Amino acid sequence: MHDNLTYKILREHLVAGELIPGTDITVRPDQILIEDATGTMAAMQFEQLGLDTIQVPLAVMYVDHNVLQIDDKNMQDHRYLRTFCDKYGLRYSPAGHGISHYIHLERFTKPGQLLLGADSHTSTAGAACMFATGAGGLEVAVAMGGYGFDFPCPRVIGVELTGQLRDAVDPKDIVLEILRRYGVRGGRGAVFEFYGDAIDTLSTTGRATIANMIIETGATTAIFPSDAHTLSWLTQQGRADDFIPLTADEGAGYDETIHIDMSALVPLVAVPHSPGNVLPVSELPDTPISQVCVGSSVNSSYDDLATVAATLRGQTVHPRVAMTVTPGSRQILRTILESGVYEDLMAAGARMLEPVCGPCVGIGQAPLQGAASLRTFNRNFPGRSGTAEDEVYLCSPSTAAASALAGRITDPTGRPPIELRPAPAPDIRLHDTLITDRLPDEERAAVVIERGPNLVPPPLPEPLADNMQARVLINVGDDISTGEMAPDGAIAMSVWSNIAACAKFMFTRLDPAFHDRAIEWGGGIIIAGDNYGQGSSREHAALIPVHLGVRIIAARSYARIHRRNLIAAGVTPLVLPDNAPDIPVGTTWSVTGLRQVLLRGENTINVESPDLVEPLTLTIDLTPGERHVLVAGGLLAHIRGGDRRAIAIPANN
Amino acid sequence: MHDNLTYKILREHLVAGELIPGTDITVRPDQILIEDATGTMAAMQFEQLGLDTIQVPLAVMYVDHNVLQIDDKNMQDHRYLRTFCDKYGLRYSPAGHGISHYIHLERFTKPGQLLLGADSHTSTAGAACMFATGAGGLEVAVAMGGYGFDFPCPRVIGVELTGQLRDAVDPKDIVLEILRRYGVRGGRGAVFEFYGDAIDTLSTTGRATIANMIIETGATTAIFPSDAHTLSWLTQQGRADDFIPLTADEGAGYDETIHIDMSALVPLVAVPHSPGNVLPVSELPDTPISQVCVGSSVNSSYDDLATVAATLRGQTVHPRVAMTVTPGSRQILRTILESGVYEDLMAAGARMLEPVCGPCVGIGQAPLQGAASLRTFNRNFPGRSGTAEDEVYLCSPSTAAASALAGRITDPTGRPPIELRPAPAPDIRLHDTLITDRLPDEERAAVVIERGPNLVPPPLPEPLADNMQARVLINVGDDISTGEMAPDGAIAMSVWSNIAACAKFMFTRLDPAFHDRAIEWGGGIIIAGDNYGQGSSREHAALIPVHLGVRIIAARSYARIHRRNLIAAGVTPLVLPDNAPDIPVGTTWSVTGLRQVLLRGENTINVESPDLVEPLTLTIDLTPGERHVLVAGGLLAHIRGGDRRAIAIPANN
Repeated sequence: MHDNLTYKILREHLVAGELIPGTDITVRPDQILIEDATGTMAAMQFEQLGLDTIQVPLAVMYVDHNVLQIDDKNMQDHRYLRTFCDKYGLRYSPAGHGISHYIHLERFTKPGQLLLGADSHTSTAGAACMFATGAGGLEVAVAMGGYGFDFPCPRVIGVELTGQLRDAVDPKDIVLEILRRYGVRGGRGAVFEFYGDAIDTLSTTGRATIANMIIETGATTAIFPSDAHTLSWLTQQGRADDFIPLTADEGAGYDETIHIDMSALVPLVAVPHSPGNVLPVSELPDTPISQVCVGSSVNSSYDDLATVAATLRGQTVHPRVAMTVTPGSRQILRTILESGVYEDLMAAGARMLEPVCGPCVGIGQAPLQGAASLRTFNRNFPGRSGTAEDEVYLCSPSTAAASALAGRITDPTGRPPIELRPAPAPDIRLHDTLITDRLPDEERAAVVIERGPNLVPPPLPEPLADNMQARVLINVGDDISTGEMAPDGAIAMSVWSNIAACAKFMFTRLDPAFHDRAIEWGGGIIIAGDNYGQGSSREHAALIPVHLGVRIIAARSYARIHRRNLIAAGVTPLVLPDNAPDIPVGTTWSVTGLRQVLLRGENTINVESPDLVEPLTLTIDLTPGERHVLVAGGLLAHIRGGDRRAIAIPANN
Repeated sequence: MHDNLTYKILREHLVAGELIPGTDITVRPDQILIEDATGTMAAMQFEQLGLDTIQVPLAVMYVDHNVLQIDDKNMQDHRYLRTFCDKYGLRYSPAGHGISHYIHLERFTKPGQLLLGADSHTSTAGAACMFATGAGGLEVAVAMGGYGFDFPCPRVIGVELTGQLRDAVDPKDIVLEILRRYGVRGGRGAVFEFYGDAIDTLSTTGRATIANMIIETGATTAIFPSDAHTLSWLTQQGRADDFIPLTADEGAGYDETIHIDMSALVPLVAVPHSPGNVLPVSELPDTPISQVCVGSSVNSSYDDLATVAATLRGQTVHPRVAMTVTPGSRQILRTILESGVYEDLMAAGARMLEPVCGPCVGIGQAPLQGAASLRTFNRNFPGRSGTAEDEVYLCSPSTAAASALAGRITDPTGRPPIELRPAPAPDIRLHDTLITDRLPDEERAAVVIERGPNLVPPPLPEPLADNMQARVLINVGDDISTGEMAPDGAIAMSVWSNIAACAKFMFTRLDPAFHDRAIEWGGGIIIAGDNYGQGSSREHAALIPVHLGVRIIAARSYARIHRRNLIAAGVTPLVLPDNAPDIPVGTTWSVTGLRQVLLRGENTINVESPDLVEPLTLTIDLTPGERHVLVAGGLLAHIRGGDRRAIAIPANN
């Protein structure tokens, strides 16, 4: 067996299925990562499983999203999550301690292990040779409950890196180059596995940038070998014992290979409103900017911030530019404090924000309408910044810094030489002060979970009906992100613990009447284009439809996580044919025998409608496992029905 | 003439009137302070004056309130204010640079000068021997336009300080002691002027804490002599040339004197929901806390933060306590970075926030409902924290730190000895990077002010009618703060540039139907108890009534600034007799000949109503100047009508 790195790790964790791309497999996660925004739902769903404790070796809850606290809801969530963690044996990282993906990289990543996270950018840990992927809250809750993680086995794209990045071209430009080639759909069903001489030139945090943002291609994850950089990273973190060397087997193959000559890369920028709209900075028209934001779960590492600081040192950002900098974690904050990077940034006029997700999810620093905001983030979906008519551009730290000085989007190549301040050794004492330990069992038993009115358990779907008649509620286009369904921002996200409250925000940007129409009509059907549900893993995008009485969605194609969230929530994702007619809002659809069609494994179902001359045939692209979940009425009902067996926790992990 | 310090400075700046307590005087401000929350209205009103440039030697606009940017409105405001400042010759301090009162103290205060600010806590500059007081935006705009500042001449309370604070008793406890004695009404019409041996033991920033929070007694301001501490402060700031020694004349008298023996003081706390509800910490029942917030326009100085850091050093805040720390300015941020105070605080688990007003005005860090939040701030009016049913306690830095460790409100006396890290010299280079300079005239002329849809000029009142018939819209109790009228918080304050949008929040906590009723009834009358409009200077609390068609308010008594804001806005503040009957909402009042009664200088007016057995006689407690403003239809109409003369700017100030 000559396994690539991806399959090597998957094989180690395989509980059911075979490693054949596209088929159902079940794996056993070693670690679970949850953050507060998706985490309150995941936690309430875990409680619905009725277990006494988590059934995985490690689970960590990070509070990093809803931390501005514009009213009391955020603190209700924090209190609930802290007591939930104490009760069930998770570890808890409080608000302000840092962004989940950075802290996890610092403190918990282990090469060769499998990490499942309730956050799409969980893939970041692939930088340290984990198989790390995101899923919806219920799937994560179920895995945390010891039922493993089901997903379609990915294909593997081998990415050979050669050459060396030129000055002012950053690792961010590598992942932007992949996005330039693949767009936001091309990576679906795939893992990007990196190899080649040039990976030696990429630090662990540089790799993390790539592994994080790879998700925007629609990919399952990215992975890098465990090598000298990995050892050095783990040693710095006081965790040399967690190191094992790990690479693909000699002679291993890939489903596809690509080559990137890093020395040929130029600074790239993703223009509004998609991370897939990538252009060389030099080809952009003159673009004055009103804001520059550095840092998020990408580009908040020491090297990233030191690069920006070195460019700005001794200068002041353009007077028309508001600049913010977010370190990724307290450890990074401390190293930039000690090295002088913090002072350089502050003296240049940057607003130094807390180590939290912040502006990346529109929680603060919402930009001006219609004015360009340049950000080193990973997504620029419309409205994600918190501003309805935003104009967000994504770029590297070098491009951000050069542009902040110039007041317009600027190619940083040819800049005067910069010298990064040396990184002091991180102070790992910080590790031990703020993240709680798993409580001993006798203490756990005594913990009382504290709830508040903002915390409302998610709706449970009715069992799947065989026959349905419903009206089309909305008809949306291609690449609709989950951010259109459960929007980002401090206001909208503050109610993510209450699906009925979230529901009022669904599709508001696209059609402000959607929510009220759905309520009035008592449910209905959503029609969509390609790559429906791209972006964030937020299962709210699937739970809101359940709340609104939506049981069928018909799209040309789906993004990976959202498709699985719909199934877990008990909503059937059907596939529209290429030649489907235009389907107006209000059209009544009749579907007959859905339950039986699913059970019999049939691959199509007909829709009848007074508005259609002849029945429309929709494709059913569902694995046998997915069909069972849907017929059971969603993943929770499926498990409660005893259809899924728990997996033993490996001892001494 | 043996003048106290207050009258010495007032006399120097007197343009009209005599220094007789309670009579109209007009003074000439040397400096104007504006912040963004009240500043957008003040700026739009300045524009309505039709002038080409400001008519005072110095005006500074500080963006420190609306800086979270939960949507695009905040940045619209910032852009408008920056271009407004460029156009009219103000200086501009951008978001994140610091809290107005701290920066002003560092960079602009001059002993003996007169500062007028569109912020009630402008009084802070009294620490450096300025006569510094707050007013509503229109009065500030008018003063900035060269028309001087009209206000009732204050009486002066001499405060003799003796003794020395014991360990763990802070300057905050001095002002809490004054609040314990005077409550939130006792200081109305007064300046608290400090003298005595013990003032030598108080640093400029310790004095600033007292001068800031004195406002909560209802006072006009507080003032300290200019002495060796003042010289040392100004020297540290690179402004030794701005120093002049200044004290009360030998033999000067006061309208009242009090004595505080500092050595007898104990740690005090203001319990919910008034800064006047002051108790010794030791007398409080056991009070577990869920949050501790340090810093705001009080207690954000180096000494304050170093005190907290020294208490926390080497320990971690209680796991159930979320703690935040806000430095007052970038200069303070830099000094705590250099000294190690920042690191102590961070290592103890505090969230280190930007130097902005933040949680003090409910812009972020809103606490849990019903759970005690302990804060070193100056106000705990209900809901000001951003949480509707909050429980906010106010205390000193020493009390906050001891309580953060214990998880409950804790008397810090008897603590283990603490050692403050020495304060490094502030780096005054920061002075010169971020605050804009006044543009040269030729450049000013070319500036185009950038506006956005969030910026709507305030309503102008109809000229005062002689006869009015209107219904009573609401009847509220004593000590209603302006925060009930224009609430704090990130959401409500983001619309402070648009009075119609603000209006929807008026009295929502007290009576959610108020706004819609006022609209439906086409206006009406507000009835209130004592000290109506205490707290913040926000003139929105007066402009919203204009928008809603309120032209008369009848209260038992008024807070200083709000009363003047009503007059400036063209709303007549009448005084209810002590024996007034209960007046139900909906009662119709008829007032006849108001205009004539005001012009004739009469001191009462009768109200007739079908609900009253006999007419109700209200007192008219208005100066001649105020009557003219009301009859003209507010201050802007008064000035446009040519009733007020501009004052020449002194050269070379």
